Amino acid sequence: MGSSYEFSRNGNKDVSLQELRDRLAEFAQVRGWDQYHSPRNLLLALVGEVGELSEIFQWKGEVARGLPDWSSDDKEHLEEEISDVLLYLIQLADVCGLDLGQAALSKIVKNARKYPVTNQTPAAASTN
Amino acid sequence: MGSSYEFSRNGNKDVSLQELRDRLAEFAQVRGWDQYHSPRNLLLALVGEVGELSEIFQWKGEVARGLPDWSSDDKEHLEEEISDVLLYLIQLADVCGLDLGQAALSKIVKNARKYPVTNQTPAAASTN
Amino acid sequence: MGSSYEFSRNGNKDVSLQELRDRLAEFAQVRGWDQYHSPRNLLLALVGEVGELSEIFQWKGEVARGLPDWSSDDKEHLEEEISDVLLYLIQLADVCGLDLGQAALSKIVKNARKYPVTNQTPAAASTN
Amino acid sequence: MGSSYEFSRNGNKDVSLQELRDRLAEFAQVRGWDQYHSPRNLLLALVGEVGELSEIFQWKGEVARGLPDWSSDDKEHLEEEISDVLLYLIQLADVCGLDLGQAALSKIVKNARKYPVTNQTPAAASTN
Repeated sequence: MGSSYEFSRNGNKDVSLQELRDRLAEFAQVRGWDQYHSPRNLLLALVGEVGELSEIFQWKGEVARGLPDWSSDDKEHLEEEISDVLLYLIQLADVCGLDLGQAALSKIVKNARKYPVTNQTPAAASTN
Repeated sequence: MGSSYEFSRNGNKDVSLQELRDRLAEFAQVRGWDQYHSPRNLLLALVGEVGELSEIFQWKGEVARGLPDWSSDDKEHLEEEISDVLLYLIQLADVCGLDLGQAALSKIVKNARKYPVTNQTPAAASTN
Repeated sequence: MGSSYEFSRNGNKDVSLQELRDRLAEFAQVRGWDQYHSPRNLLLALVGEVGELSEIFQWKGEVARGLPDWSSDDKEHLEEEISDVLLYLIQLADVCGLDLGQAALSKIVKNARKYPVTNQTPAAASTN
Repeated sequence: MGSSYEFSRNGNKDVSLQELRDRLAEFAQVRGWDQYHSPRNLLLALVGEVGELSEIFQWKGEVARGLPDWSSDDKEHLEEEISDVLLYLIQLADVCGLDLGQAALSKIVKNARKYPVTNQTPAAASTN
């Protein structure tokens, strides 16, 4: 089952969290930046990027799925800021010694147990 | 090149963003939750999870890499909150029609152009 | 000139930032908590409260001014979370040695210079 | 009882939340900006400013109280960003119809009941 917003993924390769982690670790190391990558430094950098992401959405009112009214510049800006959040999140998990991909899979399983699918019709479920 | 914090990844499979995206899309759909997954709703949910992540670190002062002094309960809590941030980020990208993995790879390339590796010694680089 | 959302302020005294600052400093000191109130600890606590504030709004879609559809419980919860953000912000400014009230007044003056009022009609201004 | 970081407040007048609220309401109205000041727009703007505030602290490691090592430029930047957070918080409370000052006072009273002062010595309390 998929989302209906997959127009941009056609033919793209499947990027793994481990690949991104390895690239980021090398990126930081060859620049001598890893010395600054303490957990709380990275966490605050993450918060900073979440702020930049929020600024894109701040004066827009409700935004439709798929961003039909956005310019390509706005979409590119959004891609950059969402990516920045992801990249700091991956680095934060890395310096904390966590396997982010495994943690995410485990959390989905945990959520599935916490919120079992009922036999409700979608209409009934939506009133929860 | 890798990080020195990989103790938890041994033997684990390489989790892709697309796999997580597909699982989350199905998870939301079978529960009738996708109707609530507008971009700004998901963005605020993401901010909420970043807040919960920050609360884990808030009174600790500087935290050492690898979290050597943390209990296994604290580490598990951290794994859950980091995962929650990731899961909402993936869903936000999805409802916006973005390919998060490709966007992240592109951003790393862009960052590499913006911050070229110099011939500085690590010691010199660290004074920047 | 005032807002149209002042129903809750009738007859209430005018609370100053300095009064809140003094109360919070005493609160922390008599409980021995001030030792934890380093700038970055308080900043992360602030981020945590912003997360809790966002959670109140996360699944609601656009929300009307004055919150006409909210229950009194929801409004009370909101008052608490907005207050928590303010209280940590005041404490953060305090441990940084800043006068938050003066800083805020200065920022309003600076903003007024940056964004001068034009002779545009409101309708014209709104298209900016 | 006061904080030990009050060097900047000598002789300054006591700024109230209501005064700031009134100035901000007028500021927005004469510029035709109040139409954009829906609760969720202001909340996201607040998150954006919290991000900018975090960026000031992100690569610094632990920061000492009173910011003894910061340049006057850095301190001025911090004053601006802390102020921006406050100004959006005040406007958010205002469009929600809340009296932020009263809410903050009430929250302090509630916290005092939740965390009563014990007869512990400060040393004992600090181990909680």
